[in-house]
Amino acid sequence: MKTLADIFEHTLEDIYYAENAITKALPKIAKAATDAKLKKAAEHHLEETKDQIRKLEQVFKSIGKKASGEKCDAIEGLIKEADGLMEETSGTALNAGLLAACQAVEHYEIARYGSLREWAKDLGHDEAHTLLSEILDQEKATNNKLTNLAVTSINTPSATARAA
Amino acid sequence: MKTLADIFEHTLEDIYYAENAITKALPKIAKAATDAKLKKAAEHHLEETKDQIRKLEQVFKSIGKKASGEKCDAIEGLIKEADGLMEETSGTALNAGLLAACQAVEHYEIARYGSLREWAKDLGHDEAHTLLSEILDQEKATNNKLTNLAVTSINTPSATARAA
Repeated sequence: MKTLADIFEHTLEDIYYAENAITKALPKIAKAATDAKLKKAAEHHLEETKDQIRKLEQVFKSIGKKASGEKCDAIEGLIKEADGLMEETSGTALNAGLLAACQAVEHYEIARYGSLREWAKDLGHDEAHTLLSEILDQEKATNNKLTNLAVTSINTPSATARAA
Repeated sequence: MKTLADIFEHTLEDIYYAENAITKALPKIAKAATDAKLKKAAEHHLEETKDQIRKLEQVFKSIGKKASGEKCDAIEGLIKEADGLMEETSGTALNAGLLAACQAVEHYEIARYGSLREWAKDLGHDEAHTLLSEILDQEKATNNKLTNLAVTSINTPSATARAA
């Protein structure tokens, strides 16, 4: 039976897989988005995600493990939804849908990093706790930026009217 | 090509499917959890989820549509992860893992309802906007309760020591 240390390691592998999958999805989202601010947000988050992958590699190292990913069904599902949108939608509706898809991904990450950093603390992994807290703060900031974009720019009656 | 109204309706069907899937997953989680507070939280959230399904049916009705679900890959992935935990884990680690799985589900819902209620407002669906905002507030409150449980009870050195 698995221990908390096993679950911690498994969830680290899950989020490492997810972050790597996100680095492949974000360039497609940045390319498909027609709203300049959303495009820029996706490009910026791609750089941030690459940095988070390096931080995750440090986390693995700090607990004496080699960084490796394990297929994460949740992120696969989230990315599949974004892919479907890009195939079937355009204009303002595409921007709104892609922004929502990015927020669903951010929320998934916020949930995972929130649990991971609590477990790191509980397991006495101080360096991992610090690194995971840093990533969690970044993900929360990204989600706040996306929410701001959603309510001030992308999902507004004027944006909808422009596309009508 | 899909419009914002199409995406709104599609995402409603997606979350309706997800909430129904959650009503099947929560009794299994409540049964598997060995922490009394987590068990109670899962049972309470099951009742809340049933109420949310009724509210979603009102949302569909308010926009002149019949309530129906569309398979949501993200929630399938999240539930699959919880199922895996229940097969392979026990004791404190199981409680910690199940609580984390519930929080990942809550975050998925928070992301989806946040987008849905913005879109409802944008599309002029006032009744839907009110109902979706009510559900969003409930999901946020549930997640806060789970976070509180995680940091005060389940993921603590004493809980880990009890299971060691």
